[in-house]
Amino acid sequence: MPTVAVLGAGMVGSIIAADLAATRGFNVTLHDHSRDALDQGLERCRRVGRKNVKAIEADLSDPVAVRAIAAESDLVAGALPSHLGFAALKAVIEAERPYADISFMADDALELDRLAKRKGVTAIVDIGVAPGMSNLLAGVAAKTLKPCERIDIMVGGLPVERQRPFEYKAAFAPADVLEEYVRPARIVEGGKTVIREALGGIEPVDLPGVGTVEAFDTDGLRSLVHTLKVPFMRERTLRWPGHAALMRAFRDAGLLDTEPVEVRGQRVVPRDLLATLLFPKWSYTSDDEGELTVMRVVAEGKLDRKRVRLTWDLLDHRDPETGFTSMSRTTAFPCAVALRALAKGEIPMTGVIPPERLASIDGFADRMIKELRKRGVRYEAEVGEC
Amino acid sequence: MPTVAVLGAGMVGSIIAADLAATRGFNVTLHDHSRDALDQGLERCRRVGRKNVKAIEADLSDPVAVRAIAAESDLVAGALPSHLGFAALKAVIEAERPYADISFMADDALELDRLAKRKGVTAIVDIGVAPGMSNLLAGVAAKTLKPCERIDIMVGGLPVERQRPFEYKAAFAPADVLEEYVRPARIVEGGKTVIREALGGIEPVDLPGVGTVEAFDTDGLRSLVHTLKVPFMRERTLRWPGHAALMRAFRDAGLLDTEPVEVRGQRVVPRDLLATLLFPKWSYTSDDEGELTVMRVVAEGKLDRKRVRLTWDLLDHRDPETGFTSMSRTTAFPCAVALRALAKGEIPMTGVIPPERLASIDGFADRMIKELRKRGVRYEAEVGEC
Repeated sequence: MPTVAVLGAGMVGSIIAADLAATRGFNVTLHDHSRDALDQGLERCRRVGRKNVKAIEADLSDPVAVRAIAAESDLVAGALPSHLGFAALKAVIEAERPYADISFMADDALELDRLAKRKGVTAIVDIGVAPGMSNLLAGVAAKTLKPCERIDIMVGGLPVERQRPFEYKAAFAPADVLEEYVRPARIVEGGKTVIREALGGIEPVDLPGVGTVEAFDTDGLRSLVHTLKVPFMRERTLRWPGHAALMRAFRDAGLLDTEPVEVRGQRVVPRDLLATLLFPKWSYTSDDEGELTVMRVVAEGKLDRKRVRLTWDLLDHRDPETGFTSMSRTTAFPCAVALRALAKGEIPMTGVIPPERLASIDGFADRMIKELRKRGVRYEAEVGEC
Repeated sequence: MPTVAVLGAGMVGSIIAADLAATRGFNVTLHDHSRDALDQGLERCRRVGRKNVKAIEADLSDPVAVRAIAAESDLVAGALPSHLGFAALKAVIEAERPYADISFMADDALELDRLAKRKGVTAIVDIGVAPGMSNLLAGVAAKTLKPCERIDIMVGGLPVERQRPFEYKAAFAPADVLEEYVRPARIVEGGKTVIREALGGIEPVDLPGVGTVEAFDTDGLRSLVHTLKVPFMRERTLRWPGHAALMRAFRDAGLLDTEPVEVRGQRVVPRDLLATLLFPKWSYTSDDEGELTVMRVVAEGKLDRKRVRLTWDLLDHRDPETGFTSMSRTTAFPCAVALRALAKGEIPMTGVIPPERLASIDGFADRMIKELRKRGVRYEAEVGEC
């Protein structure tokens, strides 16, 4: 029975653990530095009937500890805070274990590709929803269309109940949200990478089952900028209309700055104060609170001499039975499915693998979509002429 | 030659001093704790040809010092930061000197009315633009219309150049602006004082020579709530559209709170940080920068058995010759004119006098409007049936 170490016992880590423990007999252990987090993680697993998950306290900010955990396991899944992601990835590669990770590290995971190849390790990174499924579907589009001319990804996590002024709550680390509102957005235009200001290009978009949202530039393409040869690519974030202009005003006011300013003799980082004030307001406080994840991936190009548009739509709500957020489910399940594929030896490549590269494996994307559907996460595909 | 002490050598204080030094031979001295402020004040006086103004350093936060200055003068004008206003008013009353003040104190100046009456002192307070001319015109309306049913005051100081996201600069202390956005607004409805949330009731208003602005509730009626028996009265602030919603969002985020919050081990007052970030952006940086003050006072009621609407409109721009802001000019001139009236013995009443009470003096309001017009500040009056 293969053993799996799941690094991080947050919402996503627990759902990965519970998913793996459900079938095919993985021996799953959750690792986290916090006993509370582990207890909550185990409680989430029990909530879906998985009593066979173990939990061990470990300092995952210490690469030596991560390496030891990985070495004692057959496979590793990563669901860590973004700032721990890169070091953990390196430690797992050094321990020579297959890895599926959704830690959303700011660093470029592909820097470790050579190390992973040398070690003969397969490390699938960014295998969540976006990054994750967005990359896989972009990869499918780039492979299917000849040529693929344009890929447009729009994605957002939203509260169902819109409350002024932000009409927003964060289903993942809100610090990462603020960072997205500041980091310049890399998009691809005419084959060249160009830099756009984050929160720019605000545009209304009508999405079935959701209504009118706004899309704006954020730095979401990540590895796609380098891995796909598609002349026009962009990723945009979706929010209820008005949010981006408001956050621009906060940014323009200097409230997202990370340089300290002097306030009555103290040095204060404006973003730290803003986080202190906003994050409690941006937190889902109950398992009943409506929350949704919406994504659309559109690709245009030629197929059998016709110009076609491929569209994939995802709309997922919090699971009312388990209380698990759509953001954690849509993120965790692709990682769990990828880990199962690693366990079955279905990923015939080594190195650090962003999800778009998995599109080259025959049938992989279809199997992924089918597996997600089994778990209630539905990607609807449409092909149309354009 | 009567001597006048002007308390505070800021923009408004210097203009009061220069105005008084211009004619009729007042012996004028500027007082301020800051040598720099005094030098700048004298420079402003010289800019308009007034070389005969003196300047003395003094700690005006010390009531003993203010009392001594007042005792040595025949008349006193006040143009102090709001937090010093009340103590200075009390000190001048105790020194038994006539006073004209625009210090915009948060405290209720009328608490000192009995003291002033006992001392036989005339202390005209809030004699700027709004409060100030708005009160005087409201007083005129209440006296003219029988009955006066409604008084609606709208006033704002605005930059000519609208720059996102705030489209605002503060022509007076920006801390007082933030306080206005938080302090509950007292308005009069059906003869009762009711409390409205500041920044509420946002409504577009078209003003000739300005364009579309927005009006919203702020706590501007001050003494009018108590002194006039008019069943409907409200004062609203004018800004370029969008400002109020943005400031509401800042307020809702907690950024205008004055309770400290814990940020990485330090206790930080959110409003202090916001002030640190915003005030440099909200400051006029050059004497060329377009700036305007716009006010409309509307009163409805009966006159000679007809229902009429009285309207006064003020639109004033920064003086291009002197660089003096419209806000400082429209504030300083009524104070200077009132002080001249005090000197001539034209104010036959004692106590703490808000400007609406001056409307009872025959011809006073007309003379004030005429004097302001000589100084380039034009109130246009209109009478219409309604």
